[in-house]
Amino acid sequence: MTGGLLATLFGDPFAVMNTVGLVAFALVGASKAVREEFDLFGVAVVGLAMAFAGGVTRDLLVSRVPLALRSPVEVLLGLVGVALAVGLSAWLATPDEHPATVVADAVGLAAFATTGAIVATDAGVSAFGVVTVATINAVGGGALADILLDRSPFILFEDFYASCAVLGGVAYWAAGAVGAPAGLAAAACAAVTVGLRLVAVARG
Amino acid sequence: MTGGLLATLFGDPFAVMNTVGLVAFALVGASKAVREEFDLFGVAVVGLAMAFAGGVTRDLLVSRVPLALRSPVEVLLGLVGVALAVGLSAWLATPDEHPATVVADAVGLAAFATTGAIVATDAGVSAFGVVTVATINAVGGGALADILLDRSPFILFEDFYASCAVLGGVAYWAAGAVGAPAGLAAAACAAVTVGLRLVAVARG
Amino acid sequence: MTGGLLATLFGDPFAVMNTVGLVAFALVGASKAVREEFDLFGVAVVGLAMAFAGGVTRDLLVSRVPLALRSPVEVLLGLVGVALAVGLSAWLATPDEHPATVVADAVGLAAFATTGAIVATDAGVSAFGVVTVATINAVGGGALADILLDRSPFILFEDFYASCAVLGGVAYWAAGAVGAPAGLAAAACAAVTVGLRLVAVARG
Repeated sequence: MTGGLLATLFGDPFAVMNTVGLVAFALVGASKAVREEFDLFGVAVVGLAMAFAGGVTRDLLVSRVPLALRSPVEVLLGLVGVALAVGLSAWLATPDEHPATVVADAVGLAAFATTGAIVATDAGVSAFGVVTVATINAVGGGALADILLDRSPFILFEDFYASCAVLGGVAYWAAGAVGAPAGLAAAACAAVTVGLRLVAVARG
Repeated sequence: MTGGLLATLFGDPFAVMNTVGLVAFALVGASKAVREEFDLFGVAVVGLAMAFAGGVTRDLLVSRVPLALRSPVEVLLGLVGVALAVGLSAWLATPDEHPATVVADAVGLAAFATTGAIVATDAGVSAFGVVTVATINAVGGGALADILLDRSPFILFEDFYASCAVLGGVAYWAAGAVGAPAGLAAAACAAVTVGLRLVAVARG
Repeated sequence: MTGGLLATLFGDPFAVMNTVGLVAFALVGASKAVREEFDLFGVAVVGLAMAFAGGVTRDLLVSRVPLALRSPVEVLLGLVGVALAVGLSAWLATPDEHPATVVADAVGLAAFATTGAIVATDAGVSAFGVVTVATINAVGGGALADILLDRSPFILFEDFYASCAVLGGVAYWAAGAVGAPAGLAAAACAAVTVGLRLVAVARG
C-alpha cells in the first residue's frame, strides 16, 4: 500500500500533488462560502475558484493553456472538494474553522507549491522563476477566494503563509540543484511547506 | 439579402459575431461613460475597454496574442461604437438607459459568448473550458467598464447576466456534440444568450 | 565613451533600456515603500514589483514566458535599485520626493515604453498594438506599486504620465514606418517620453 503510493508519487508527482491540491482547496474555499451563508451555486463557485486560480495563473505565466480548461478531471476533483465541504457543513456551524479545514488549507498550500515548482522547472525558468511560480500557484487560490468573499486580500501578508510556499519552492530548487530526482524534490517541497505552515498555525 | 447574411454567418461565424460584439459593447461602454460625464477621451477609453477586455482575456487563456493588438480593424470597429454613443448622447440625457443601448448590451453579450465558444473549441479545451471561456469573453467587458467607472463589479452577480452566457456556451457545446456545423452552433449560442437576456430584462 | 554607449544602444537597444528601466523603477518603488515605513522585506517586494509588473504584463500579452522569470540578471538589477533606495533613505527623510527619484521615474517610464515598443514590434502586432503594449509596459509598474501601497491607482489618470508613454510609442512606430533603424526608433521613443514627462513635472 505505502509502496504503491510512493511508486505513484515518484512516478508522476504532478498528478498526485495536483489531485490533492484541487480537492483540498475546493474544500477550504467552499467551507468559507458556507460560513458566509452563500447559496449552493455561490459555494461551488468560490470552491472551484479557490481550487483553480493558482494553477491558471501558473499556466498563463509559462505560456500554456490552463490545465483547468483542458482537463475535464480537474472540475470533477474540485466538485469532490465542494461536496465534502457541504457534507461537513451539515455537522458544523463554522466548517472553515474546523481543524480538518485548517489542515486541508496547509495541505493544499503545499501541494500547489509543489505543482508550481514542477511546471516552472519544466518550462526552463530561472531559480527565482521557480520560487515565484511555486508561491503564486500556492497562494493564488486563497487570495481570489478572499476577494470573492469581499474580504481584504491581506491574507497574502499574513506571516508564514506565503513564506511557507516560498521556502518550499526553495527546497524544490535546492533538491534539484544537488541532483535529487523529481519525485524526491517534490516530496521535499511539500514536506517543507506543510510542515512550516502547520507549525505556524499551532503557534498562532 | 437574408441569404447573403446567412452565407456569411455560416462561412465565418467568428468574424460576424466579433464585428457585432465590438460595435455593440463599445456603444454600451461609451454610453455609460457619457452618463458619468467623462470627457471625450474618457468616453473613448471606456468604450474601447468594454469592447476589448473580454476578447483579450479569452486570447490570453488560449495562449495567443490578443486579436485586439494584432488587427487594426478591431480598433476601428470599437471607434464606430464610440461614435454611435456620442451621437446618441446629443439626443438623450441618459443614453445608457435607452432601449437601444439595453438591446445592444444583450446583443454584445450574445456575440462575445459565441466568439469565446468558437475560439475555445478551436483551441481544443474541455466542455467546461468552452463554457468558461465563452462566459469570460461575454462578461469581461462589462466588468472592466464598471471598474473604470468606479462602480461595484457586482454586475457579475446580477441574476441572469453571466448565466445567459453560460447557457449560450452550453448550447454551443451541445450543438457541436450532436454534430451540428460550426455556423449552426454559433447561431444557437447567440440565440440562446440574447433571448434569455432580453426575457430577463423585460421581466426586470 | 559616448561612441561606445551609442554603439551599445544601437547594437541591442532592448538590453540597454531594460537595464535602465529595472534599476530606475526598483529605485522609485522602493523609495515609495521607505516613505510608507515598510520593513526591509516590504521595501524589496514593492521595488521588485514596480520593476517587473510592466514587463511581465507585456510578455503575457505577446504570449511568451516573462523575462523576469527566465533571466536571473533581472532580479539582480532590481535589487541594485532597491539597494540604491535604501542607501538614499539614510540621508533623506522623503526619498520618493527627491529630484533624483522624480528623474528616475521619468527615465524608467521612457525606458520601459521603449522595451514595450521593441517587443511588440518583434511580435508583429498592429500599430495600435505597439502603442498599447509600450504604454502598459511603461505604466504597469507604477500602478501595481500604488496598489501595494494601498493608494488609489488613479496615478494612471494623472495628466501627462501615461500620455508621455503613448506619444513615445507613437514616435517608435512612426520612426519605424519611415524606415529608421531599430536603435534610432528606440532613441526617439525614449527621448520623447522622458522629455515630455520632465516638462510636465517641471510645469507641475
